[in-house]
Amino acid sequence: MTQATPPRIGIIGTGAIGGFYGLMLARAGFDVHFLLRSEYAAVNDRGLHLNSVVHGALSLHPVQAYARASDMPPCDWLLVGTKTTGNLELAPIIAQVAAPDAKVVVLQNGLDVEDSLREHLPGSLHLLGGLCYICVHRSAPGVVEHQALGRINLGYHSGSAINDDLRRQGIVEEGAALFRQAGIDSQAMANLHQARWHKLVWNVPYNGLSVLLGAGTTALMADESSRELIQALMAEVVLGAQACGHEIAESYAEQMFTMTESLTDYWPSMYHDHLHKRPLELAAIYARPLAAAKAAGCELPRMQALYQALSFIDRRNA
Amino acid sequence: MTQATPPRIGIIGTGAIGGFYGLMLARAGFDVHFLLRSEYAAVNDRGLHLNSVVHGALSLHPVQAYARASDMPPCDWLLVGTKTTGNLELAPIIAQVAAPDAKVVVLQNGLDVEDSLREHLPGSLHLLGGLCYICVHRSAPGVVEHQALGRINLGYHSGSAINDDLRRQGIVEEGAALFRQAGIDSQAMANLHQARWHKLVWNVPYNGLSVLLGAGTTALMADESSRELIQALMAEVVLGAQACGHEIAESYAEQMFTMTESLTDYWPSMYHDHLHKRPLELAAIYARPLAAAKAAGCELPRMQALYQALSFIDRRNA
Repeated sequence: MTQATPPRIGIIGTGAIGGFYGLMLARAGFDVHFLLRSEYAAVNDRGLHLNSVVHGALSLHPVQAYARASDMPPCDWLLVGTKTTGNLELAPIIAQVAAPDAKVVVLQNGLDVEDSLREHLPGSLHLLGGLCYICVHRSAPGVVEHQALGRINLGYHSGSAINDDLRRQGIVEEGAALFRQAGIDSQAMANLHQARWHKLVWNVPYNGLSVLLGAGTTALMADESSRELIQALMAEVVLGAQACGHEIAESYAEQMFTMTESLTDYWPSMYHDHLHKRPLELAAIYARPLAAAKAAGCELPRMQALYQALSFIDRRNA
Repeated sequence: MTQATPPRIGIIGTGAIGGFYGLMLARAGFDVHFLLRSEYAAVNDRGLHLNSVVHGALSLHPVQAYARASDMPPCDWLLVGTKTTGNLELAPIIAQVAAPDAKVVVLQNGLDVEDSLREHLPGSLHLLGGLCYICVHRSAPGVVEHQALGRINLGYHSGSAINDDLRRQGIVEEGAALFRQAGIDSQAMANLHQARWHKLVWNVPYNGLSVLLGAGTTALMADESSRELIQALMAEVVLGAQACGHEIAESYAEQMFTMTESLTDYWPSMYHDHLHKRPLELAAIYARPLAAAKAAGCELPRMQALYQALSFIDRRNA
């Protein structure tokens, strides 16, 4: 089942992540359509702009921008870049924009983020998870700052190919190939759950501690005590993954730790959410992994304490 | 060995704690001498003032105030109300002010706070620990706000009576009687170490979380997640105490938790230290109990994570 024409791509939620990948795909010649909410007017008027340490200054103007899902053409691939905290309202939008056989890639952090979407989507749609190893943030409406990295790893979550190994792998490979054509590292992952646990090894310490300690990666990596705390939290995530049947190599946490030392000061997305008093993505990044580990008989006390402290902050922000 | 004349009492460090107990003892007719540093001029000029929910508005003026230890008369009882973070400089001051057979009561939180003093004090001095269950803070130089409670429990640490049960108990009882004569609840504790672990059940969660979450007791007790975290931290302190051979009744932590619910909003001393970028008392309240528990084979992961987070904040403040 090869597509004669290049696939049409829809970006649901054009924040830092959706904006970056959508712009890169559009510049590579793909037909990309952007759904926006608060930033529609700015992007429609002035376009999308990327200031990238890796790719330089890139712009896209005009942008195929939409304020309403009902105005968008049916898309073959959908990249979902919204916050997990809005997932309840997302399914009807996806259903409206998706072509009958569409592939929907959820570019969100955390565990089981696809589950709540799945039950409200047509069975014909393929749901994938996308793990973004990238340092980006929005500096203004339609303006994305790209500090480092970029890799996106894909895994199949659910859909009509779930029991057809070859077709499933074909779909994931097709997605990874799209990104690679746009100059972005991308790999097909055999096990999405395991890939999501891998990503948590980074997200659990750095997202939470950036909020709790009001610190970016440079400060967190410069202090002996925060370094120990980060390593202890990473070790707990690895334990939780193992309890849930997903082996993570010991060296992986070390690798994430060392990689972070090499970053220019990065403030994770949860810090920006906190700063603007938006809801924190605690269910996806903390509560669900903790519950999964606990169900497997594994307590993660530091991660739980961090989750409880963040929950306090999250409720106070609200 | 009864004293014909009432004992002379010296207050080393007239902050909220030293100011409160010293003023109460002076009002009860004791001969109390106050050593001050930054607030000497204010207290010498305008006196000491207490705004107490329990005792009303009380004043002491003139005050027997001193800027230098060398100016003070020898005291029979010394109450040490300075921060543990200054204990290294304290021994010579105590040695200078103490009468030959003096009793020195260390009114500080944390574990083993007497140890570093002991080795630099004459063997003739009796060293005691005082556990203050009280909500006080300074609102201005020489002005103490007393919100709730007041009890001070005493225990013998070291000195020439260490192997003489009767004499030791007599000294501790004599101290407790002084406070009771000033209208303050006070009890002699048979085991200072155990008493200090009891006090940690409150200090470990509330001091640290007030800094980490920027919250007083009312906010901390109003949120489901911070309540759970407080209870989990209390449970860890109880475990640590047990590992070190000090049984703490299960109901004790519950009692501290319930008591805190009844307080009007209280911001622990560590919060004020943080606010004014003074060193936090982390060694006494966190590092030493953690080390003692660890030496006994007991890990306290939440308390350790809290300690690591606070260490980061403490170093940033410096």
